[in-house]
Amino acid sequence: MKHMLLAAAALSLAVPALAQDAAPAPSPGEIAAAAPASDWIAIAPSELLVMDLAPDAKGQARRIVIQLMPAPFSQGWIGNIRKLAAAHWWDGTSVNRVQDNYVAQWGDATEKKALPAGLATMPESEYVTPTRGTGGTNTSVTQDGRPLAMSWSGKSPGWSWIDADDAYSTKRSFFRGWAFVSVDGKIGWPVHCYGAVGVGRNMSPDTGSGAELYAVIGHAPRHLDRNIALVGRVISGIEYLSSLPRGTEALGFYKTEAERMPITSIRIADELAAADQPKFEYLSTDSDSFARYADARANRRDPFFITPAGGADICNIPVPVRQVAAK
Amino acid sequence: MKHMLLAAAALSLAVPALAQDAAPAPSPGEIAAAAPASDWIAIAPSELLVMDLAPDAKGQARRIVIQLMPAPFSQGWIGNIRKLAAAHWWDGTSVNRVQDNYVAQWGDATEKKALPAGLATMPESEYVTPTRGTGGTNTSVTQDGRPLAMSWSGKSPGWSWIDADDAYSTKRSFFRGWAFVSVDGKIGWPVHCYGAVGVGRNMSPDTGSGAELYAVIGHAPRHLDRNIALVGRVISGIEYLSSLPRGTEALGFYKTEAERMPITSIRIADELAAADQPKFEYLSTDSDSFARYADARANRRDPFFITPAGGADICNIPVPVRQVAAK
Repeated sequence: MKHMLLAAAALSLAVPALAQDAAPAPSPGEIAAAAPASDWIAIAPSELLVMDLAPDAKGQARRIVIQLMPAPFSQGWIGNIRKLAAAHWWDGTSVNRVQDNYVAQWGDATEKKALPAGLATMPESEYVTPTRGTGGTNTSVTQDGRPLAMSWSGKSPGWSWIDADDAYSTKRSFFRGWAFVSVDGKIGWPVHCYGAVGVGRNMSPDTGSGAELYAVIGHAPRHLDRNIALVGRVISGIEYLSSLPRGTEALGFYKTEAERMPITSIRIADELAAADQPKFEYLSTDSDSFARYADARANRRDPFFITPAGGADICNIPVPVRQVAAK
Repeated sequence: MKHMLLAAAALSLAVPALAQDAAPAPSPGEIAAAAPASDWIAIAPSELLVMDLAPDAKGQARRIVIQLMPAPFSQGWIGNIRKLAAAHWWDGTSVNRVQDNYVAQWGDATEKKALPAGLATMPESEYVTPTRGTGGTNTSVTQDGRPLAMSWSGKSPGWSWIDADDAYSTKRSFFRGWAFVSVDGKIGWPVHCYGAVGVGRNMSPDTGSGAELYAVIGHAPRHLDRNIALVGRVISGIEYLSSLPRGTEALGFYKTEAERMPITSIRIADELAAADQPKFEYLSTDSDSFARYADARANRRDPFFITPAGGADICNIPVPVRQVAAK
């Protein structure tokens, strides 16, 4: 008996023994892996936030890489994050809260460390953004002939939406590798999916500076959409946050200093030595490869599955990201 | 500055200083906590699967409690699980696979341990169940006057559904404390939410015996619905699974024996000594309290939130469960 699989996505599939056998349908991951190099877009070091935790008990490095969102979303907070990283503000801070099926959160546990000068105070209106626009190229992502999502590759804000009701929104789109949703098509917002990175805040009208950040480590808490700023997503190393012990205080805060996970440094990648800069690329959401990948996420036809779902919520269509060797 | 909160659900709220101040709206958790005792239903020990992992480095016990599903769902597999537990079959086995944002899976890593006699082989048709029926009482769970879900309290299979499109299903209902969904209203199925426990299997037509189990530790993998048997949900101790180190082999399997987490025992709770039997109860999904809780999950009005979502996916309306002191 083989290991029970649950899903065969990561397995290489044997070539059929008989010529008349149809090849098994590829999994979403196999579709992405087979995409031509031209469908993959390099992520600039300036768009990567690199967070190094203290090494583990065996001395192994624990590096988390966060991709920051592109304009026009959340740029005020992201500007603050760039200033905080340039000031090496997070060095010596810690992960202070890990709440099961919710978030891991980091920053200054003392809450007394002075912030760098010149941070912007963002208004709540920046949780969303106008999405009407002109120009650009719309690419339809289809699912058995029905639209699944639209991707928009223009240079100014603007989307074509497809109708996709998921209890939190009625329209969705991809913009330069990021999922966004809307209700009315006039304003859109990014989505609290697994791995999303957001800005901790106090009660309204506070919107947070960006010094206190969290990553989603559970089922998408979509009720936070439009209530808090999202600034990026973890593209590598989420397991160093999601497998931390859960805090036992209210909201998952750690009770003692000893429980906190020290942060060695957080940098924008272009401040690192060239050899130490992580290199990642994402699958263009404008590509045919992405369209086929998204369709396969919604309709699993690879051999393990017997009943394709016929749809997928936006958080179950994660944009493929892969690490590439440094040059 | 207070700890950045992200969500204030667990905080006690101060009484307003001025009589004319409206009391802050309660959070979903506060609504559940305020429900009368008569709205809480005891879970019989015969419906609890108790899984003890090896103690942690400090000698602390690690107990996971799983509530098994009621009839008519998945009863063939659950019957097998009762036989496996009665035979103490899992004692000395281990958690062998932890895949980030997906599942933790346990069973016999050697895959050579003989199964007890008399286990049923279940057909794939049992992944779903007919849900037409008569009798029973339907309770409407409303959301700002709109239906959010129906709960059904009758004794034979039968549901009233509400229309709630979430990309995977178009109708949903609660049955004796469990969420179920449907597309056509004629067949329904349980849902792969965070904490759901299912039966690992090989390729179709295998459906698994129940000896290999998994728990969901990430965003709801709803594409597994109707493709694999669900048998219960973790109601306590999920953090002992979700915070385990992720496996580095394909599909998150651990590479070495040393990485596996030993299972000391798995028992149906009524086999334990009376004093060791965990006592839990769930909030009746037929109660007004649950209706208000579900409404508040979809429309957060507690002070942290500025824009209620206006809806909630079925996995973001977890049925409240609480531990009660042993008598």
